[in-house]
Amino acid sequence: MPVARARLLIACPDGRGIIAAVAGFIAEHHGNVLDADQHTQPEHGHFFMRVEIELAGFDLTRETFDAAWAPLAKSQRMQWHMNWGTRKKRMAILVSRESHCLHDLLWRWKTGELDVDIPFVASNHPDWQADVAALGIAFHHLPVSPETKPQQEAELSRLIHAEDVDFVVLARYMQILSPSFVERYPQRIINIHHSILPAFAGRRPYHQAFARGVKIIGATSHFATDVLDDGPIIAQATLEVGHRDTVEDMIRKGRDLERVVLARAVRLHAQDKILVSGHKTVVFE
Amino acid sequence: MPVARARLLIACPDGRGIIAAVAGFIAEHHGNVLDADQHTQPEHGHFFMRVEIELAGFDLTRETFDAAWAPLAKSQRMQWHMNWGTRKKRMAILVSRESHCLHDLLWRWKTGELDVDIPFVASNHPDWQADVAALGIAFHHLPVSPETKPQQEAELSRLIHAEDVDFVVLARYMQILSPSFVERYPQRIINIHHSILPAFAGRRPYHQAFARGVKIIGATSHFATDVLDDGPIIAQATLEVGHRDTVEDMIRKGRDLERVVLARAVRLHAQDKILVSGHKTVVFE
Amino acid sequence: MPVARARLLIACPDGRGIIAAVAGFIAEHHGNVLDADQHTQPEHGHFFMRVEIELAGFDLTRETFDAAWAPLAKSQRMQWHMNWGTRKKRMAILVSRESHCLHDLLWRWKTGELDVDIPFVASNHPDWQADVAALGIAFHHLPVSPETKPQQEAELSRLIHAEDVDFVVLARYMQILSPSFVERYPQRIINIHHSILPAFAGRRPYHQAFARGVKIIGATSHFATDVLDDGPIIAQATLEVGHRDTVEDMIRKGRDLERVVLARAVRLHAQDKILVSGHKTVVFE
Amino acid sequence: MPVARARLLIACPDGRGIIAAVAGFIAEHHGNVLDADQHTQPEHGHFFMRVEIELAGFDLTRETFDAAWAPLAKSQRMQWHMNWGTRKKRMAILVSRESHCLHDLLWRWKTGELDVDIPFVASNHPDWQADVAALGIAFHHLPVSPETKPQQEAELSRLIHAEDVDFVVLARYMQILSPSFVERYPQRIINIHHSILPAFAGRRPYHQAFARGVKIIGATSHFATDVLDDGPIIAQATLEVGHRDTVEDMIRKGRDLERVVLARAVRLHAQDKILVSGHKTVVFE
Repeated sequence: MPVARARLLIACPDGRGIIAAVAGFIAEHHGNVLDADQHTQPEHGHFFMRVEIELAGFDLTRETFDAAWAPLAKSQRMQWHMNWGTRKKRMAILVSRESHCLHDLLWRWKTGELDVDIPFVASNHPDWQADVAALGIAFHHLPVSPETKPQQEAELSRLIHAEDVDFVVLARYMQILSPSFVERYPQRIINIHHSILPAFAGRRPYHQAFARGVKIIGATSHFATDVLDDGPIIAQATLEVGHRDTVEDMIRKGRDLERVVLARAVRLHAQDKILVSGHKTVVFE
Repeated sequence: MPVARARLLIACPDGRGIIAAVAGFIAEHHGNVLDADQHTQPEHGHFFMRVEIELAGFDLTRETFDAAWAPLAKSQRMQWHMNWGTRKKRMAILVSRESHCLHDLLWRWKTGELDVDIPFVASNHPDWQADVAALGIAFHHLPVSPETKPQQEAELSRLIHAEDVDFVVLARYMQILSPSFVERYPQRIINIHHSILPAFAGRRPYHQAFARGVKIIGATSHFATDVLDDGPIIAQATLEVGHRDTVEDMIRKGRDLERVVLARAVRLHAQDKILVSGHKTVVFE
Repeated sequence: MPVARARLLIACPDGRGIIAAVAGFIAEHHGNVLDADQHTQPEHGHFFMRVEIELAGFDLTRETFDAAWAPLAKSQRMQWHMNWGTRKKRMAILVSRESHCLHDLLWRWKTGELDVDIPFVASNHPDWQADVAALGIAFHHLPVSPETKPQQEAELSRLIHAEDVDFVVLARYMQILSPSFVERYPQRIINIHHSILPAFAGRRPYHQAFARGVKIIGATSHFATDVLDDGPIIAQATLEVGHRDTVEDMIRKGRDLERVVLARAVRLHAQDKILVSGHKTVVFE
Repeated sequence: MPVARARLLIACPDGRGIIAAVAGFIAEHHGNVLDADQHTQPEHGHFFMRVEIELAGFDLTRETFDAAWAPLAKSQRMQWHMNWGTRKKRMAILVSRESHCLHDLLWRWKTGELDVDIPFVASNHPDWQADVAALGIAFHHLPVSPETKPQQEAELSRLIHAEDVDFVVLARYMQILSPSFVERYPQRIINIHHSILPAFAGRRPYHQAFARGVKIIGATSHFATDVLDDGPIIAQATLEVGHRDTVEDMIRKGRDLERVVLARAVRLHAQDKILVSGHKTVVFE
């Protein structure tokens, strides 16, 4: 049986004794540190920490933790988040016509590999309605045109709010979300881009890669920001190609990378293992 | 004992029966095809072929080949090159202060891994004079400033000509060669750039990569053209980095990639295994 | 529109002029060589060749080819196979409880990535009946015990024969097929083993790998022979693991490799790109 | 200027509050934790920790630390080691005829990449005497035959003792050290083996790999134990090969892996980043 565990995430200015103070606080309250990771970003003096706490024996609860923790958090000017592990993160998926990432995520979810709930899948095309519904997940067909984009995004926001969605995955969603939409969900939208960013941002990256004659292609999962394909990178992977590979070969081979790289980002985010620092991520694997 | 072999390289418009015609020509003259590779670039209809011919029994010689071959070459509008394998390619190396690629090439040359002669190493710094001289290779110290660049490049050209150099390797040579110099040696200058081109072209690519927060770094060997870091790519390789890696870590880890990726390009070029098609390479490995 | 093309596979003793003879034969009959690969295995003097022939204009047919080809084939003591490309290969899948390879193959088949027909899926467990049936593919539940194994394999053979199956994929089929069964289908059974063979053959390879403390795990697709996990290797891939990875992590990460490595073997086999030479494969990619 | 730092390594039974106790101890003595890594091996309940301590301000010294630390160490039944960072580790290198690993280590040492001193290189062949001496490092030619092995190993032990050697690197040393020699230096002898262990242990692994027809080759660095090629694995890496690769190609390509994998192990060991747990390593990178 898995142990009940909470996850405490901390970001603060670097300083002496922070690890001792945090570990001491947990020990003092009879928690057990199951896993701890920390990182100091030397260029900015930022300190990041992730702690998994065994809850059996821990004498603080959701009700009493904040008050007990506040003095330490304040003295170190911490931004922090405590995930009590009592509720799975709720992930919505946006998709267009290419379904390999969607199907892969659904398969991983179904087999228990991804520790999330999926309140809905939305798409600007109706193609995957049946596949999604067959798994008992709501499917929303939200067609979009330049004219209806504001309304479509409003409807999306409504769904996200109504379904208490924690984060949104763009599983090869081929529409560019408006900056105002993206800004509403900082570090809550995960995209997969089919190139080794920053190379070949924008449209048709495999076509760009083919034209340039590269010998390596790749995929990048990242948080979406208001600048297209420019958000903090979570994971990347690559594979070799050669002069015999057509654009179609690249697209086919790339699908296998995209699936894995997106799933890795989703898994990490579901486990609170990604912290964002400016334009970069700290990934505690 | 290795078999005496020639290498025939062909580029021409695609068409029916070219392989049969070439293989037939060789068989008719009692040559034996030891290895053959071909590639049709579908987007332009270009055909590329590389054939290794066992010379024992072949009834054509350097003196008689051209006349015998001309009718077929003409009818197919071939660009072609026959390397009789009687002379190693002559490779000059340019280097600056970072020596890992230089030392790696010298070590591979010394142990017989690279089938080339090295008439000289030139550098804008005197640092590696002794190491190069100890191997019995000429070292030319060619300091350069914005004012003296034309003269320095003229001296370089003189050396290349005087020493009958086939190709030049930029083994982390930190000077930008003038377009007029580069244009003089099409597909005869191999550069190593320490990023996954086209990402992070130009100066300090590891610093650029660090600032962007990528999770993969790499190296690219390519033919130099008059546009910086834009020539046809020969080989690329990558490795994973993480948030713990500083710029210095990237530089250190990257050195191992650069050495291998540059050596691979040099080896391929020494064996006439690279054909250039516009902005791309066909690499027959 | 894809070009109608046939594939000619040849294995014979090495000798002079084979390529010229084959290419000449095709040209003489107004076929066009779209792609040609050859390989000489120097240690045994074996020659292997694969040619793709454009059929438009080719003046031989399934009815007339054999007689026209026989003299050349005989003179070079060729083993050969001509696939006229008029029929997809028929692939049966065997599976047990772990379904990631099954679902992956089905998904690739459904999206057109694998150029095969799937007459049936068989399993010693009923678990995947519905998923398979939903795609319109027959599912045969063939339970097996030590006592009933001969009958179960007989039923399997009957199905293979009745359905005109070209090759069988063991998509994590956790039963060991009897040598007599395997011998009936040389180079027609493709297995995926979840280790970098020859390391960790046999049962529970991830547990073996974990116990040994390796830093790399992998997957191997190979043709099944009567010696367990010892057949000719088609494809392998690896990924890094560390001390934090539990057996369960290895199993999870390994699934992504197994899917890709098996799909690669299936794809290559479907395209007649694998030739077997003794205990090894020649893979024309 | 790099910060003066000590490294504290701890192995003990897992239990509550160890991190807090260690971090608290350091903070109490005004040390600053620059980096901390820990790992619990769930199958045995072992806990491992590595802490880098900034020494500026730390109020304990080499003389006073042990007494202050003893109560905590005792109560948790710790095995521990404190490296005050005042002395580089001393590394001896053994080599035979193949020099790529030797030359690579020497080059990395010379350029400052490896933070070690090299008191001597020893070999059963005289080949590399001049190269080693040119760097100002002592070279000992220690020829060996079955009859003289005991004396040769005794001389080696004498040198290791006389030169205060911390660890020995077998840089493709082609002699099998006797178990009694190896047992004298637990976790102090690092070997590079040119295969993905446990596959192809013993002699001529590339020949074994070629005969088996694998599609992936690799290299493994590990601590030597009295069972050949069976010690705890530190690092592994792999690369793809194909049917065109001869044994000589594998040997050539493999050299690039061996150099990198051995250098990685040496670097990790020099930085006290490897802990051994039974048959496995915990590597804090």
